Amino acid sequence: MTGIEYSHAAPAQNKASVPDHVHDVYPFLGVDWGGNTFIGAAVPFGMVKLGPDMESFDGRPSGFGYMSGGRIIGFSHLHLSGASGKYGNVLVAPVTGALDIADIRSPRTGEVNHPGYYAATLTRYGVQAELTSTRRVGFHRYTFPASAQSHLTVRIDHCLDKGPGSESQRFLGGEVHLISGHEAEGMGRYAGGWNKGGEYRVYFYMVLDTPAAGARTWAGGAMTTEKDAVINSDQPLGLTFDFHTRAHQTIQAKVGISFISTEQARRNVQMEAPGWSFDTIRDASVHLWNQALSKIDLHGETDSKRIQFYTAMYHTMLMPSDRTGENPLWKSNEPYYDDYYAIWDTFRSSGPLLTLIAPDRQRDLIRSLIDIYRHTGYMPDARSGNDNGRTQGGSNANVVVADAWVKGLKGIDYPTAFQAMLKDASVPPANPQKEGRGGIVDYNAKGYITLADERSGSRTVEYSYDDFAIAEVACGLNHPDEGRLFAGRAHNWEHLWDKNLTVQGFSGFLRPRNPDGSWAAPDMQVRGTWPDFFYEGDLWTYSLYVPQDVRKLIELSGGDQTFVKRLDNVFYRKHFDVTNEPGFLIPVLYNWAGRPDKTADVVNALLEKAFTDQRSGIPGNDDSGAMSSWFIFQSLGFYPDAGQDFYLIGTPSFPEANIHLASGKTLRIIARNLDSEHINHYIQSATLNGKPLDTSWFRHNQIVDGGTLIFNMGSAPDSWGTTNPPPSMSDAVSPPCAAAKSQQE
Amino acid sequence: MTGIEYSHAAPAQNKASVPDHVHDVYPFLGVDWGGNTFIGAAVPFGMVKLGPDMESFDGRPSGFGYMSGGRIIGFSHLHLSGASGKYGNVLVAPVTGALDIADIRSPRTGEVNHPGYYAATLTRYGVQAELTSTRRVGFHRYTFPASAQSHLTVRIDHCLDKGPGSESQRFLGGEVHLISGHEAEGMGRYAGGWNKGGEYRVYFYMVLDTPAAGARTWAGGAMTTEKDAVINSDQPLGLTFDFHTRAHQTIQAKVGISFISTEQARRNVQMEAPGWSFDTIRDASVHLWNQALSKIDLHGETDSKRIQFYTAMYHTMLMPSDRTGENPLWKSNEPYYDDYYAIWDTFRSSGPLLTLIAPDRQRDLIRSLIDIYRHTGYMPDARSGNDNGRTQGGSNANVVVADAWVKGLKGIDYPTAFQAMLKDASVPPANPQKEGRGGIVDYNAKGYITLADERSGSRTVEYSYDDFAIAEVACGLNHPDEGRLFAGRAHNWEHLWDKNLTVQGFSGFLRPRNPDGSWAAPDMQVRGTWPDFFYEGDLWTYSLYVPQDVRKLIELSGGDQTFVKRLDNVFYRKHFDVTNEPGFLIPVLYNWAGRPDKTADVVNALLEKAFTDQRSGIPGNDDSGAMSSWFIFQSLGFYPDAGQDFYLIGTPSFPEANIHLASGKTLRIIARNLDSEHINHYIQSATLNGKPLDTSWFRHNQIVDGGTLIFNMGSAPDSWGTTNPPPSMSDAVSPPCAAAKSQQE
Repeated sequence: MTGIEYSHAAPAQNKASVPDHVHDVYPFLGVDWGGNTFIGAAVPFGMVKLGPDMESFDGRPSGFGYMSGGRIIGFSHLHLSGASGKYGNVLVAPVTGALDIADIRSPRTGEVNHPGYYAATLTRYGVQAELTSTRRVGFHRYTFPASAQSHLTVRIDHCLDKGPGSESQRFLGGEVHLISGHEAEGMGRYAGGWNKGGEYRVYFYMVLDTPAAGARTWAGGAMTTEKDAVINSDQPLGLTFDFHTRAHQTIQAKVGISFISTEQARRNVQMEAPGWSFDTIRDASVHLWNQALSKIDLHGETDSKRIQFYTAMYHTMLMPSDRTGENPLWKSNEPYYDDYYAIWDTFRSSGPLLTLIAPDRQRDLIRSLIDIYRHTGYMPDARSGNDNGRTQGGSNANVVVADAWVKGLKGIDYPTAFQAMLKDASVPPANPQKEGRGGIVDYNAKGYITLADERSGSRTVEYSYDDFAIAEVACGLNHPDEGRLFAGRAHNWEHLWDKNLTVQGFSGFLRPRNPDGSWAAPDMQVRGTWPDFFYEGDLWTYSLYVPQDVRKLIELSGGDQTFVKRLDNVFYRKHFDVTNEPGFLIPVLYNWAGRPDKTADVVNALLEKAFTDQRSGIPGNDDSGAMSSWFIFQSLGFYPDAGQDFYLIGTPSFPEANIHLASGKTLRIIARNLDSEHINHYIQSATLNGKPLDTSWFRHNQIVDGGTLIFNMGSAPDSWGTTNPPPSMSDAVSPPCAAAKSQQE
Repeated sequence: MTGIEYSHAAPAQNKASVPDHVHDVYPFLGVDWGGNTFIGAAVPFGMVKLGPDMESFDGRPSGFGYMSGGRIIGFSHLHLSGASGKYGNVLVAPVTGALDIADIRSPRTGEVNHPGYYAATLTRYGVQAELTSTRRVGFHRYTFPASAQSHLTVRIDHCLDKGPGSESQRFLGGEVHLISGHEAEGMGRYAGGWNKGGEYRVYFYMVLDTPAAGARTWAGGAMTTEKDAVINSDQPLGLTFDFHTRAHQTIQAKVGISFISTEQARRNVQMEAPGWSFDTIRDASVHLWNQALSKIDLHGETDSKRIQFYTAMYHTMLMPSDRTGENPLWKSNEPYYDDYYAIWDTFRSSGPLLTLIAPDRQRDLIRSLIDIYRHTGYMPDARSGNDNGRTQGGSNANVVVADAWVKGLKGIDYPTAFQAMLKDASVPPANPQKEGRGGIVDYNAKGYITLADERSGSRTVEYSYDDFAIAEVACGLNHPDEGRLFAGRAHNWEHLWDKNLTVQGFSGFLRPRNPDGSWAAPDMQVRGTWPDFFYEGDLWTYSLYVPQDVRKLIELSGGDQTFVKRLDNVFYRKHFDVTNEPGFLIPVLYNWAGRPDKTADVVNALLEKAFTDQRSGIPGNDDSGAMSSWFIFQSLGFYPDAGQDFYLIGTPSFPEANIHLASGKTLRIIARNLDSEHINHYIQSATLNGKPLDTSWFRHNQIVDGGTLIFNMGSAPDSWGTTNPPPSMSDAVSPPCAAAKSQQE
């Protein structure tokens, strides 16, 4: 596994052959009402995400949105998508008229966003702003009105979410330097936000295509003509280039960003954007997006569904951020990604999606995780600002590795990954909110976490599944002792199962245990959960979270029929929370109970109710594209049980979808007899490569080399898929590892 | 006020002049995921609502929907829209092959629904079904395949929701009679569902255009050739006409429905559908819909918004059901409507909408309420199945009457209505779940309801507003003593206001009082509310429900700025429940605090997030069109404070909307500088008939005679509407009734 070469070279590809899906992407989809998606310009997984920041009347952390009052304060270079609490650094803003650095903000009009391009007119200043970018460089084009006082300002003290919350950011200080009449550089230091690390530094180098008539800086107080300004507090720090502009005069700026040094920021400009053609940079970004989006094509879909689908593709490829070459902490030839935000969100369907349509990217994301383990001691559960944190539930990087392993993803140092997984499962972390497994001592000794540790319910069920993932890799790497140990721990969730706990007529739920092992007092049940027992999910959601052993879960819930009624109850009584990830697998659980028709009912309704083509079209935080990836899989008609090698069939949304796999082969998915009203959402029969597919699931190796999957649809349920349910751990007739064999060559 | 003639005559109108908006209606909008809208054929406010009922796998009460499994069991004649728990009577189903009355169900294909027309093909039987209707007659057209065994069956024992729930229905018995080879009649008796009454009887008369080869009946057991079948239990009861059909043979049936007698049912067929032309009946229904929908026209809207808007119009005009001439309980020349389901839902915006666009209909609905008071002793809070019940919150028919009064609606016997209001406010009802005001003794004696009665919080605030409504009418009718009494009681909500109760940093909330007057124990606050203190709403929602005195509410909440932060908290932390009516007024409350820009933010986002043009496009139960009416008003750019004579301005969705008023005049609403991205949702300035309109509200008498309202839109808030907030009771400088004058001539 050693000696793998990591190549930065892009594959040769004929531009003309790539379909133009950029115009099927509506970046505003999901920006409002909780989706929090990024607005601006970025290349796929780009480190620089250059976009507008809006005045925040109420200290809200998102840089953009309806509720923000509509005024733009400038364009900053680092953002998240579907997340908050970080970035907004190096804020560039054009201004006309007298410059008051405490009052730079403008209403906007003519706002446009496409992948790789953003434009708006700042009506207060009469300036049109256009943005594009490379991976590490923001490219700005401003069209000014005639004005004796035109300015291009840079503010370093700005960052998103300076509110009082525990996830808010702080500006710690920095410096700016005027190099010439058209160049500046500098650095800002920031702390806070989601992770549990210290400060992070953002370096910039800015170069203009137009010499300024003058330039000024400020540090704390008034503007001066000093070329250098330094501050070590949270006071204002910035610079301005001043111009006399004629009508329609264009001034362009390139801003290289680096986490290493201003020199590196300058090199990034020289390497990635040496010229001054905005359109060349934009075209290159568009081409990268079209390459990325062309991995799936659709036929017979509505305009609305096409927009939703390709926008979801776009949203799954904004994060994590590719910072290869920009790691200030250690040197390595491995890829380096940041903004795993959070793996707890993305391991469920984002990872499996990339494994299908962009396995090289998923390989690099995992290699980066492993390299972070090598140098920090842990694979992160979440990471941003060059540091790990915060953990949410389990150590689900374990599932990410296992998913790659069981699907035969090449180019990954699995032995080292296995060491990282063993550490997660064995070594109590110094700061369990930062990395590793909180409560691991109790979990390994008693088989469950107690109320002495926070999130003891969600952590116990997630660790159980993480341990199942470790067992898979252990067996695969020929470590049968570890395989048996962790396969045994994969049953640990059963230790918190109280078969006598009855809610709304259903018996058997997770229930917390006190440190002495006794059940927590029952009088707290009235609220549907216990305080701090579950993380971002309720009793119903987590009492359905056993991806490794749904068969056993059904048995403990009273059998197939009762389990179906329980799922019905979850959906009818709105215990299902479509806005968050812990329930992602719940809709397809019907398949294990022989009722894929009910999976189809629920998925069909969720795809329509919860997702639209509007600005509010993502039901909850997009979480780095996790929500979008759920939409993509379910729209295609199947959904992964991440960490295992099979997919659950739901109901297809498109008459035809083609997935272009890394092998060069194509998986065709054809749905016959679909209708516009979605009446025919029940599968009557299916074939895979011409042979009947009677099960409501299939394995990864049945499709990874391409083929044709045909669904015949009808308006009422039939007997299809009602027998031979999907795999469960309890189905195994042999001891763990007996049947294991490496998927690797 | 006596001697008013009620006319059944439709106004003369030129068919050619009516725009065709029927094709802008998508009846499936809202059918799924909780909207529960009606699918089938009905005329506006039609008594007969003829549509498909689906097999219900899980005892769900709705007759139609994704989750129902997709098989149609037949077409029944009485339904609700946006409600459940009632009807599904006289189920007609075509069948081919051997007839098993225990297994009549079929998948469907080719399903189509437009106002006044429904069609689907039942694939199991190869029969195409088409439906249309008049007010009291269902018209069926079935196209059969060649078959030696074709049947047209009628089942009387069927009704919706026979589940075990407290709102489910029961079949009590009935009878069927074969009159000839092409005629039958009969009756079914049913009880249960939402109201608090006894049984209701549904009579039918059925006539075919094709003589049957044979006919059979059944009552409890097997099919027989008896012409008469009677049963007095919940066992099967029905009949079938049997045919030998050739390919594509059409068999038509007319089914008259009556609540009086089979003779009346027959007369309804003879009067309303004398001929056999399906298309004639359908065309007449379409014409009625086009007349009703043409009261508002739009310009510059998107296709999607147009469909949403006219579908919302359609949904607001399906209920209540016009049963004039079909009242089995008393004889009267007044109009008779049933399925006020519930006024608690519809008083907020459905009533004010009809007052604007169909004041004659609203007049008749109120006359019917008053006539129900005359003969049953109470204006209902809800009514269906010819009986009152169940009450939900206040006695909000009081607000319905006051809304009509302050807006000058003619043709209503206000003195009798006033007597009905006084009774609500004075006389303890025998069954407070059926009608009247539960807890009225405490309320009138102590000024609040205690925890000794259910819903003491929501009832106290609703009664306070109901009393404000009574005061308005009392003053108008020159009863100054009553005016002062009820104006005083309109402050009663303040008695449950605990200024020291602090939640999430905000102080001052409603809090229950024990029967001895002490505050309820605070340890129950953790759940956000107390059990049974509020009906279908939480502490945040009901602590904002003071439509008569928002000024006082703001004062008790800490002033404008704190109130704005409280509203922000309600929306950001998702205390606002867009799926239910108690919070309908909350978004516009910002106007009272001088922040109409925030109203615009919230309304804009809600219109997009919560409402779509899809089958799941209504966020909660449509409640007889209440949700749809909220959408209509807010899309137009203003919203009523029902029971008072002014509207709150939000943000317009259309470049131009014209409301054709009863006066023959038109109110033009023009929004300049709207953009497709909804960036420009902030009003910068406004004019009404050329004069500046600087307030975020206007009065009914400013628009009732038509005019032109112009909004100039922009992308960021400006100072428009920040001063001169809307009226509040506390603003009054004179004692109650001093300034009152009748709006009536």
